Amino acid sequence: MLQSRLFTKTRKDAPKDEVSRNAELLIRGGYIHKEMAGAYAYLPLGLRVLEKIKHIVREEMNRLGGEEISMTTLQRKELWEKTDRWSDEKVDVWFKSALKSGAEVGFGWSHEEPITDMMKNFVSSYRDLPAYVYQFQTKLRNELRAKSGIMRGREFLMKDMYSYTTNPEEHKKFYDSVIEAYLNVFKRVGLGELTRLTFASGGAFTKFSHEFQTILPAGEDTIYVDTKKGIAINKEVLTDEVLSDLGVNRADLVEETAAEVGNIFDFGGVKSEQLGLMYKDEGGKSVPVHLGSYGIGVTRLMGVVVEALSDEKGIVWPKSIAPFRAHLILAVHDDADIKALAHEVYKTLTAEGIEVLFDDRDARAGEKFADADLIGIPSRITVGKKTLESKLYELTDRETGKTSEVSLEHLLQELKD
Amino acid sequence: MLQSRLFTKTRKDAPKDEVSRNAELLIRGGYIHKEMAGAYAYLPLGLRVLEKIKHIVREEMNRLGGEEISMTTLQRKELWEKTDRWSDEKVDVWFKSALKSGAEVGFGWSHEEPITDMMKNFVSSYRDLPAYVYQFQTKLRNELRAKSGIMRGREFLMKDMYSYTTNPEEHKKFYDSVIEAYLNVFKRVGLGELTRLTFASGGAFTKFSHEFQTILPAGEDTIYVDTKKGIAINKEVLTDEVLSDLGVNRADLVEETAAEVGNIFDFGGVKSEQLGLMYKDEGGKSVPVHLGSYGIGVTRLMGVVVEALSDEKGIVWPKSIAPFRAHLILAVHDDADIKALAHEVYKTLTAEGIEVLFDDRDARAGEKFADADLIGIPSRITVGKKTLESKLYELTDRETGKTSEVSLEHLLQELKD
Repeated sequence: MLQSRLFTKTRKDAPKDEVSRNAELLIRGGYIHKEMAGAYAYLPLGLRVLEKIKHIVREEMNRLGGEEISMTTLQRKELWEKTDRWSDEKVDVWFKSALKSGAEVGFGWSHEEPITDMMKNFVSSYRDLPAYVYQFQTKLRNELRAKSGIMRGREFLMKDMYSYTTNPEEHKKFYDSVIEAYLNVFKRVGLGELTRLTFASGGAFTKFSHEFQTILPAGEDTIYVDTKKGIAINKEVLTDEVLSDLGVNRADLVEETAAEVGNIFDFGGVKSEQLGLMYKDEGGKSVPVHLGSYGIGVTRLMGVVVEALSDEKGIVWPKSIAPFRAHLILAVHDDADIKALAHEVYKTLTAEGIEVLFDDRDARAGEKFADADLIGIPSRITVGKKTLESKLYELTDRETGKTSEVSLEHLLQELKD
Repeated sequence: MLQSRLFTKTRKDAPKDEVSRNAELLIRGGYIHKEMAGAYAYLPLGLRVLEKIKHIVREEMNRLGGEEISMTTLQRKELWEKTDRWSDEKVDVWFKSALKSGAEVGFGWSHEEPITDMMKNFVSSYRDLPAYVYQFQTKLRNELRAKSGIMRGREFLMKDMYSYTTNPEEHKKFYDSVIEAYLNVFKRVGLGELTRLTFASGGAFTKFSHEFQTILPAGEDTIYVDTKKGIAINKEVLTDEVLSDLGVNRADLVEETAAEVGNIFDFGGVKSEQLGLMYKDEGGKSVPVHLGSYGIGVTRLMGVVVEALSDEKGIVWPKSIAPFRAHLILAVHDDADIKALAHEVYKTLTAEGIEVLFDDRDARAGEKFADADLIGIPSRITVGKKTLESKLYELTDRETGKTSEVSLEHLLQELKD
């Protein structure tokens, strides 16, 4: 893409009320726009990153046998009353309004209830199970404070999956495969080494749930990690009883600040029973369907990547989710031959299927380099005076800053990996 | 995809309160789920169709130079007050709620205001223009009645594009190119011959806006068409003055019932001035940016296709947006050889990149045929007793019902077109 055609521009400063590092960098880079605290629009560069994260998550969910759907934002009161999650005392993040008829409606902050109710149309026998259903959905949550940029929003994109199985064994098998898939997702978006599967508080049905926590100074959670055993425990549930359950010694634990990037939850048959999702087993007996729920905050994940991998100059995207693979910089704009060469390289790279942002603007090289550092595309290619003679391109790695002079052939090889 | 793995099933009946033909067929086919009047979830088959429509629209918008973004659902009161579109007297479809702080917020029913306000961060000079920005966004509208299925919802997906240009000439050029792109969209989704560019009421700035109206008995609008001149006029604006403006005789007009599938609108500088989106022209003078707005109701379009092209047996999808290209039916399920052959054909077709829904269920052939007619995939392939000997496959066209016996080679050729 020609950068001169991009309607966004980098900015020196983020809005004054923006206190989070992730939103500050993303706003300055032209990735997002702050509509209000906790509600951000995604601009062309930001939407590209978001779509790449969604693509990775979707691949992993499809591999598990997940089927994608899209539920509604508008929510029926009577449904949430059945599970006692309608009242503001029980759930304090509801946005509510009313239809013209006067009937109250809610705006979806979660979707276990409507999806489970919907499944009643399709599940009646054990032959209809298991079913794994997921969606990418904008969730609306009336948070009291929203100061963490896109890491905790009043409006954010979530991938939520729900598993409907016949019994605890079938559930457990799928639940464990989701843990693998989630660890894959976090690895693929560049957070593998920082992310810990963590024991957290359960619910009516189980003692524990599992969270995926990324170690991060800006995180909101405290976890305790036994690195030898590879076990992490959320501070919420750190008791002597839990330590003994998990076979962990308090002395081996290291305290870390972390951000939750995913969670998985076992509802057992509780919610299905409340909502009337029953199936007939092989003996003809009516049994509540076993429900599991699996969430990844997709926009939150993007924010965590920015927090975890940025440096003092700006964002550092992993190749897997960068808006472009390479940032081509025309360093001299008053020389027709150099300009022509840069355009030729741009054509060659894009013809090979490499995603390139080409900074063809009439601007000083220093300004372009600073913008490139802020925007954080993995590889920077500079075409300048020297290139014309040597036919060697300056290739700079955004993460390490390492620069080398390479031929076009080498460039292609490097960027296609 | 194996139909045995699809969690949805066809249904004999739609919910009793469903009065629209499009929603009735889509619910019975397992495409959508009714959450409440005017709010429908998209199930795996429905989401496939929706994504294909989005893909077509996206291609056409990108070709125009459009840049994709995604704005927020949550809306700031103060912004909409600037254009006098906050009060319920002025706009009667707002859903509103309040933040914990007590501040009122709205839920986006349209996005001219926030997008135009956002552009203030990026536009200051004529050098920053033109800019063409679009999104696919869930709109929420508190409609008094919602009885048209997915043709008019309280929650629906819209593609809205906004053009920011320096002057009326530049605007007009883009506006005309959008007309071409929109006609392309409607042609590509199978509504080309039924859809008319229609003069409709303008606003503060122009005498007319343009609508795209698809002729349809279930439509909510009345239009008058001069087929010779290729001009259509919405009943709203049909006056002697308009007829004379457009050089049309009343006697040449044919009345038609139609559904609006798109509209385009010229705001001039009015809204930019209200919101403060100004640019410096070449002489340094501050001028309001010229705004155009261009909408296609994406879910509505899906509903109109169903209404326009279905028959008494079910839905008839055009190839371009069908959830699958072919529906492979295993007509005999108690014969291992026939079963193996059908699975082989399924593998061969999918390996060639053809999207196939394979009805591998243990069910009667008659039931499968009825389901296939309801679901409406363009080509049905039947593998039965005869196929094993003749190696000829029964290929049935959903639209015409025409059946022929063809070789595997011919089948591949036919389906790859």
